[in-house]
Amino acid sequence: MISERYSAGLWVFAQSVEKHGGYDSAVSVREQIRMAASVPGLKGLELIAPAHVSKDNLKQVTGWLEESELQPVAVNPYVWTEEIWQRGAFTSPDPKVRRAAIDTAKLAIDIGHELGTRRMCLWPGEDGWDYHFQVDYRQLWDWTAEGLREIAEYDPETFIGYEYKHNEPRTHSLVSNAAKAALLGYELGLKNIGAYLDFGHALMSRENPAETVVMLARLNRLVGVHVNDTYGTGDDDLAVGAVHLWSMVEFLLALEMVEYDGWLSLDLVPKRESAVGAAKRSIANLKNYRKMISKIDRNLLSEAQAAQDGLKAQDVVQNLLASD
Amino acid sequence: MISERYSAGLWVFAQSVEKHGGYDSAVSVREQIRMAASVPGLKGLELIAPAHVSKDNLKQVTGWLEESELQPVAVNPYVWTEEIWQRGAFTSPDPKVRRAAIDTAKLAIDIGHELGTRRMCLWPGEDGWDYHFQVDYRQLWDWTAEGLREIAEYDPETFIGYEYKHNEPRTHSLVSNAAKAALLGYELGLKNIGAYLDFGHALMSRENPAETVVMLARLNRLVGVHVNDTYGTGDDDLAVGAVHLWSMVEFLLALEMVEYDGWLSLDLVPKRESAVGAAKRSIANLKNYRKMISKIDRNLLSEAQAAQDGLKAQDVVQNLLASD
Amino acid sequence: MISERYSAGLWVFAQSVEKHGGYDSAVSVREQIRMAASVPGLKGLELIAPAHVSKDNLKQVTGWLEESELQPVAVNPYVWTEEIWQRGAFTSPDPKVRRAAIDTAKLAIDIGHELGTRRMCLWPGEDGWDYHFQVDYRQLWDWTAEGLREIAEYDPETFIGYEYKHNEPRTHSLVSNAAKAALLGYELGLKNIGAYLDFGHALMSRENPAETVVMLARLNRLVGVHVNDTYGTGDDDLAVGAVHLWSMVEFLLALEMVEYDGWLSLDLVPKRESAVGAAKRSIANLKNYRKMISKIDRNLLSEAQAAQDGLKAQDVVQNLLASD
Amino acid sequence: MISERYSAGLWVFAQSVEKHGGYDSAVSVREQIRMAASVPGLKGLELIAPAHVSKDNLKQVTGWLEESELQPVAVNPYVWTEEIWQRGAFTSPDPKVRRAAIDTAKLAIDIGHELGTRRMCLWPGEDGWDYHFQVDYRQLWDWTAEGLREIAEYDPETFIGYEYKHNEPRTHSLVSNAAKAALLGYELGLKNIGAYLDFGHALMSRENPAETVVMLARLNRLVGVHVNDTYGTGDDDLAVGAVHLWSMVEFLLALEMVEYDGWLSLDLVPKRESAVGAAKRSIANLKNYRKMISKIDRNLLSEAQAAQDGLKAQDVVQNLLASD
Repeated sequence: MISERYSAGLWVFAQSVEKHGGYDSAVSVREQIRMAASVPGLKGLELIAPAHVSKDNLKQVTGWLEESELQPVAVNPYVWTEEIWQRGAFTSPDPKVRRAAIDTAKLAIDIGHELGTRRMCLWPGEDGWDYHFQVDYRQLWDWTAEGLREIAEYDPETFIGYEYKHNEPRTHSLVSNAAKAALLGYELGLKNIGAYLDFGHALMSRENPAETVVMLARLNRLVGVHVNDTYGTGDDDLAVGAVHLWSMVEFLLALEMVEYDGWLSLDLVPKRESAVGAAKRSIANLKNYRKMISKIDRNLLSEAQAAQDGLKAQDVVQNLLASD
Repeated sequence: MISERYSAGLWVFAQSVEKHGGYDSAVSVREQIRMAASVPGLKGLELIAPAHVSKDNLKQVTGWLEESELQPVAVNPYVWTEEIWQRGAFTSPDPKVRRAAIDTAKLAIDIGHELGTRRMCLWPGEDGWDYHFQVDYRQLWDWTAEGLREIAEYDPETFIGYEYKHNEPRTHSLVSNAAKAALLGYELGLKNIGAYLDFGHALMSRENPAETVVMLARLNRLVGVHVNDTYGTGDDDLAVGAVHLWSMVEFLLALEMVEYDGWLSLDLVPKRESAVGAAKRSIANLKNYRKMISKIDRNLLSEAQAAQDGLKAQDVVQNLLASD
Repeated sequence: MISERYSAGLWVFAQSVEKHGGYDSAVSVREQIRMAASVPGLKGLELIAPAHVSKDNLKQVTGWLEESELQPVAVNPYVWTEEIWQRGAFTSPDPKVRRAAIDTAKLAIDIGHELGTRRMCLWPGEDGWDYHFQVDYRQLWDWTAEGLREIAEYDPETFIGYEYKHNEPRTHSLVSNAAKAALLGYELGLKNIGAYLDFGHALMSRENPAETVVMLARLNRLVGVHVNDTYGTGDDDLAVGAVHLWSMVEFLLALEMVEYDGWLSLDLVPKRESAVGAAKRSIANLKNYRKMISKIDRNLLSEAQAAQDGLKAQDVVQNLLASD
Repeated sequence: MISERYSAGLWVFAQSVEKHGGYDSAVSVREQIRMAASVPGLKGLELIAPAHVSKDNLKQVTGWLEESELQPVAVNPYVWTEEIWQRGAFTSPDPKVRRAAIDTAKLAIDIGHELGTRRMCLWPGEDGWDYHFQVDYRQLWDWTAEGLREIAEYDPETFIGYEYKHNEPRTHSLVSNAAKAALLGYELGLKNIGAYLDFGHALMSRENPAETVVMLARLNRLVGVHVNDTYGTGDDDLAVGAVHLWSMVEFLLALEMVEYDGWLSLDLVPKRESAVGAAKRSIANLKNYRKMISKIDRNLLSEAQAAQDGLKAQDVVQNLLASD
């Protein structure tokens, strides 16, 4: 049975007009948490440290989460957008910035311990390049590996999921697909490094998201999951299922097959829509798709897959839409 | 109400392993027609002249169509794949080839008259280029316009639908999107020139197929429709609805809105699947989607569209999947 | 001979960190003009009304342009980013906003008259949609056509170049490719409506920019040109030639072939680079490429194109790089 | 200094009109070898077993290579196109086919030993899927890993380079990017498994080819290199440098930086061009680019990269085009 543990990145509720617009939202953290709590079925939150939660407001945030009955799902270091990260975090040319990135990640781990979560979605959004010839790729890989080693060894119990992405805000991100994130774990020989799989990012990297789930899970490198949708070339962060119904259904089915027991975390950027509305619609869709999946004839599907028969597999799923 | 006039290109049933592999199929034309007739709901065929039907076998083909109760939907000139067309048809550097392309199109018109159809899907698949600097684009446009003028004026009652496509088999086709096809009609001041809209080709050109329907119909330039599916960058010619459910549903709805009363013609290339099976699945899907569309609350959808409210529009369509 | 009239959009010099971040730049208009003037070879500017120039500061701006010896190249209406345009300009669901868009365009025309330019780059960036089913496409086309008719008829001497774009900031723009922009002119029967061709936008729409030049010029619908570069799926707005050398050289050659005598206007968004530096590099590149083009053996190229011989054409251009 | 060891896949010279059209070329293997030998600068060949070379014709082929002074560079198993491989090789649902794939790979290794090469480009072109839900991804990964283990352990001295590719002929290949190929080596703990990097395939997977070189070489997983060019979404297999000049120059530079001492092997599919002509043009281009690279001011480039200064890096390379 697929997990019904639906969560969201708290940033969804900042209702920012511009993407990567910084977290000086007009909406306070407390209000954002309340907005999240108003979404039926939403039970968890990813928080950003120190933008949402720091050592200063830890008690308050804990209280707000409790009053809203929302569980902390991951604590993620804030290493993008702010001016300091403009040229990268773990791969910044400035050693002080690289140190700051590592320290921010450790802070997120510490705060995770306080809040009771051992999971991090790590998105060093500006770690990459824009122009051909601009960077020494080996250097970027070395710094990334060193940085990850330090934070992963800082607390072997915290799972670090690198949220890979093909591009945006840079024209190229370094860790641009799922297998690269998994390779980092192998290279370092550390079990607590893997990938945070964002459905839309997988499409941007021309992955088939369900296959990515299986590929990562098979190697024990699936740390967490973001859900949303995109037309495929940019990071549209639309409501779940709005574009790719079948790909999302197959994705959810794959998560079930690998017995993923983590959270499905909404990562939406509703610029012209209500954040609460987009989250509601997304969770309602996920629940609908879960019901569809529960009606799949598993024997027929297994037969189709054993024969790798695409049309027979289509029969199974398309008939889910045939009503009377 | 959306048309239930389902047809197919006869080529679907050639069961060719290689795409653009030529029409010396091991399966005879008569057998291909019988295969088509075995698909529930399939009532029409597009034929290629002279590959499928020529002056020589016209009576026979007419008889085979009648015995199979299949209507001729369009007669399309065979101006690709064969060695003569390797460097283009209407834009070939060889004037004899350009003349042959025009003559083949006239032949298709003549045969259409005999068979009782006044519609042509024109796909000059090799009219384009592969390398930067390879062609004089103005020359290609001039030749295309001249060729189309001659065939459109040859019979003003026959509607010529240019089947635009972004690429394949060339890296670039000249008439690479719907608006270019429509422009040809405007430039020439001829009402019987427009576009043949292939769902997968629209995606390859980064169009939103439903919008393409409306854009063309609004200018009276929608001549015919091919249905299939693709992951988006190549011309996969998969079974209808296999990838893009919502885009296909929106497309069918748009066809209804513009009161399209033509055929929905399958253009599939089942290389590892049964052609009959792929056609069956496609028509079954189209019927399912038609039922879904019949359940859409039109007032709610109109309200959502009047406000351009994406989430409200999503509510309307996603709830079609919510069963009990 | 290719034009050496290099200009830039003044917005290039706002040095905004976020794209579409609004024009409340920390850098004043006067300072931006001075920065532009410091770029060797830059002789003209596109201005945005009323963000850069309004009836209030018209005299001042005129003075600043004169003191900097920069010509006004186009005056473009500011109909995006600001909150009023969040759901579109000419296609906003709110009739007051649609009226405001038309009025802003007329203001730009008026100011153009004052400044002595009769050219407008019209980019209604938010005219589009994000979700399937969100809008009534026919309505959007009707409103766009009506709006353009009103502004084009307001001053038949001013050329309106619709700056088409596939997406961003919306997931889909309505006027998403060059042929659609040209169709607007045909549909309305107005000679002063055409396309503003942005090199990067052409790539986003999967066009071959040189072919787009010829297609538009052949129909007298090429109003203006923006130059920059992109990796192809997003609007990267990098320095000219940074990614697509051959495509840019072919583009410049096509502009020469169609005897384009307008400006080549830089449209760059240097987020992590100096705006002046990116503009300098771009113009230096354009000059280098112009020299390369001057060395092309035109007879050989004509022969290659008459035969549509891709390799022979490659011989001609690749040998430009062979030095001793 | 970049390697000047230029080779080609022998299939380039089959002059097949259709891609993946099988190797029953009208041109004999001997004639293909002679054609290859006629290309100035071409010194090596990749051969396919048993299509080009088998135990039966081994002596003959050895003789033909010697008389043409061409070195064998790699021997690659023929596990695609033929009817047996239509549903995959190592991931075929049929265990006999999977066995045949492994046996064919062992044959290629044996023949490599005879010919004196210890390198294999492994392209199981049909190992993938076309439809969502069609396959059990875990099963496909398990079978791929098992098959690779068996052939890699069969001869630890032969380097197996998995030629990853995003799609074509299937809509999705399993091993669809460079990092996935490298992961296979890590998962199996075998040092002789890595990636065969095809420039065009890298672009199809949205990789930056130079970064891929460094990523693979840093992990000792770069087995071999194919060069060609593509517009990016399909596998166009055009002459080297025809589209992406800068990306190719950066790629060659990266190969030099990682001290790659293998061959640069042409993988072209000239359908409307002379194969010899396309190969000639490609090698001439590679030599030109090599000269350009030799003129790069390495100190300036290092400075630019140390600062990750994209414009300064552009200055260095764009000035290579500035002649007097």
